[in-house]
Amino acid sequence: MNIRLYHANILAMASGFDLIEDGEIWIHDSEILFVGTAEEAKRNYGMVLNLLDDDDWDREIDLKGDVVMPGFKDAHTHSAMTFLRSAADDMPLADWLTKQVFPREALLTEDDVYIATKLAILEYLTSGITTICEMYLHPNTIAKATEDCGFRCVQCGGMNNFSQSIEEQREWFGSLNNGDPLTSFRLGLHAEYTNSRELMEKTAELSHELQAPVYLHCSETENEVAACKERYGLTPTEFLDSIGLLDYGSTFFHGVHVTDHDIEIMKEHKVAVVTNPASNVKLASGIAPISKYIKAGITLGIGTDGPASNNCLDMFREMFLVTGLAKLLEKDASAVDALQVLDMAVKGGAHAIGLSDCDCLAKGKKADLIVIDMKQPNMQPVNNLAKNIVYSGSKSNVRLTMVNGRVLYEDGKFFIGEDPEYIYGAVQKIIDRMR
Amino acid sequence: MNIRLYHANILAMASGFDLIEDGEIWIHDSEILFVGTAEEAKRNYGMVLNLLDDDDWDREIDLKGDVVMPGFKDAHTHSAMTFLRSAADDMPLADWLTKQVFPREALLTEDDVYIATKLAILEYLTSGITTICEMYLHPNTIAKATEDCGFRCVQCGGMNNFSQSIEEQREWFGSLNNGDPLTSFRLGLHAEYTNSRELMEKTAELSHELQAPVYLHCSETENEVAACKERYGLTPTEFLDSIGLLDYGSTFFHGVHVTDHDIEIMKEHKVAVVTNPASNVKLASGIAPISKYIKAGITLGIGTDGPASNNCLDMFREMFLVTGLAKLLEKDASAVDALQVLDMAVKGGAHAIGLSDCDCLAKGKKADLIVIDMKQPNMQPVNNLAKNIVYSGSKSNVRLTMVNGRVLYEDGKFFIGEDPEYIYGAVQKIIDRMR
Repeated sequence: MNIRLYHANILAMASGFDLIEDGEIWIHDSEILFVGTAEEAKRNYGMVLNLLDDDDWDREIDLKGDVVMPGFKDAHTHSAMTFLRSAADDMPLADWLTKQVFPREALLTEDDVYIATKLAILEYLTSGITTICEMYLHPNTIAKATEDCGFRCVQCGGMNNFSQSIEEQREWFGSLNNGDPLTSFRLGLHAEYTNSRELMEKTAELSHELQAPVYLHCSETENEVAACKERYGLTPTEFLDSIGLLDYGSTFFHGVHVTDHDIEIMKEHKVAVVTNPASNVKLASGIAPISKYIKAGITLGIGTDGPASNNCLDMFREMFLVTGLAKLLEKDASAVDALQVLDMAVKGGAHAIGLSDCDCLAKGKKADLIVIDMKQPNMQPVNNLAKNIVYSGSKSNVRLTMVNGRVLYEDGKFFIGEDPEYIYGAVQKIIDRMR
Repeated sequence: MNIRLYHANILAMASGFDLIEDGEIWIHDSEILFVGTAEEAKRNYGMVLNLLDDDDWDREIDLKGDVVMPGFKDAHTHSAMTFLRSAADDMPLADWLTKQVFPREALLTEDDVYIATKLAILEYLTSGITTICEMYLHPNTIAKATEDCGFRCVQCGGMNNFSQSIEEQREWFGSLNNGDPLTSFRLGLHAEYTNSRELMEKTAELSHELQAPVYLHCSETENEVAACKERYGLTPTEFLDSIGLLDYGSTFFHGVHVTDHDIEIMKEHKVAVVTNPASNVKLASGIAPISKYIKAGITLGIGTDGPASNNCLDMFREMFLVTGLAKLLEKDASAVDALQVLDMAVKGGAHAIGLSDCDCLAKGKKADLIVIDMKQPNMQPVNNLAKNIVYSGSKSNVRLTMVNGRVLYEDGKFFIGEDPEYIYGAVQKIIDRMR
């Protein structure tokens, strides 16, 4: 399949944020063959066409000046929790988790996870999200749901004292990293506070054995940190470091309540942080110190967290919150500017979840891209494109979402091989059944 | 013009938040004639039709189960500042105002204000906003722009030491309250810190003469409050009270930094507050104490503030921020729930800006309403409609926006009598001219 995008303003993000005006992007199957101006395209035409299977484009899309950029990476989510959207809100994390979430998750079947994940994928596509980092039950089922949709998914283990095991993690690490190229798997724990010391030590051993980082929720709430200090006399970061769990790096989801010493440890071990601002405000968890992380050179991504705590899967809302909350926390309106946020939502996110082949638009990268509709009032005038995207952009500006060279969403229509109305009905039935 | 909406789920908000399932709304010209179930509609058909000019509907719209609700009220904005969107960001309020905004506003013509206001109206419509409370330069021009679009606009004076006068306020109060029913006018000051004591005392006199409240920016930043205390030994609220400016009520825009004593004064004088959370975080101004206001029974509305400080005009973003920031401020995930926010965005906003005829869907009210598309992934499943709207709703769910009985926006198309592309081009020229 050969696709040509032309008359595009390209925010390639390959190096810096310069815009390629009147640009072209050529895609062959899952890969980007060419990114450049129309003039460069003309010059390269013959040469590049030799690389194509045939002389004709399967599809040529005239973008009429709209913007093409790499897709957003939702670097932390629990997709199948769509079934719980608006079913429980306005309560603290601990109550919400133990009284509302866990009892209902216990009733969830694999089929439920499959279809509820697909509902989330529909929503990711509307927000220009082309990749997620997923932590939930039934990883094989989630892999099937995302692969069936043609969607890219990095999964991580969510082991705790009651669910998942070291053996399963080892198995998934092997199978899910060597199957469909859309799917990959990272070692993972739910969190320090839901795992015994023994399980975490065994996870550290597995991390050493596989030379792979461990992903986990870390330092999300004040209570979590206080309880860890009481248990081990250490902050969660210090404790994880003390048992060697950070030796091959790690990705912390949340990282709201950290000390300067924690940040030093994170820097030393190349720990990445994925911030989830909407979830953190909605559950009253606090504001992550993004400015400090940036100063320390920590790799940063942005996540929506699950739709039961957020409640939506919208990178535009998250981007505005990342900068807005940083400004509030620092009492400084210049803190964390639009370019830094955009970098987090795209490249930082990709790197935080271990992907290097879909972080920008360039020759040889995966064709994970989105088209931003500039002909809507919230994107006008165009004084600064990045600021328009971060400060006034919205889901309604996403005209097209392409993953791995396939258009999965365009002009409000979905192309994931299943009827959205069927998915809506099926997910409604899950929660209706549990009432 | 007679319009019938049917197969609607109606969130009328006339009393409480109960949903009328399979409902109908009948509209005659600018007014709502009937709101009820299909069954009630059938029973009332003959009776109500006698009130109509003719037996036929000009238009019947099958909503296929989508939700109809009253339009949102953007209770504080500076619409024409669209021209400055993304032209200046990431700086504190004082610098932003004196170095970026004021010098450029000095170059703004009435024609500029006219077209830049229209750009904002396009955006309001996409977000289901049917009424704004506007403070800007050239009120007569703004009235013309909004009336030409068929849009409802409450204006207030924005007097300061360099612009607008007591005489102009008196004149606008007379003319703009007695012209097109879409337009009304309230007395208003820019703020305490931009007006001499003499001007504020004269405004208080005018307020007494006209028995009308005065609207103004109040207690937006810590610096503002500190400077007022230094000038007068009083907080802004205490000072305004001391000169009798609150005697006929008032509406405070922002109200971020207030004392308990301020809130007592506000309660006593029935002062309403319009909160602008996106602007307040982006300019690092702080978080308004919404829970305290609710406890004190203060009337509360929500505003976007101008597009140069926000930078978008989106009530969904504001609603999420109102609840999210309240939860953060109170460290309580149950603070300010979805119903309270929805009430602020619709009824509270209408009351804060002095409107009582477009605050809910009921017989005799103005036909200012919106249709929410429930067939999108972010609105599924429907466990709680109000929570879906506040926590996961977005611009992309607004299928139709009707103001004063006229459809101004439907399925992504605008019906305001001017081509959006022309407006985009004209506003781009304004800012290009100023570079």
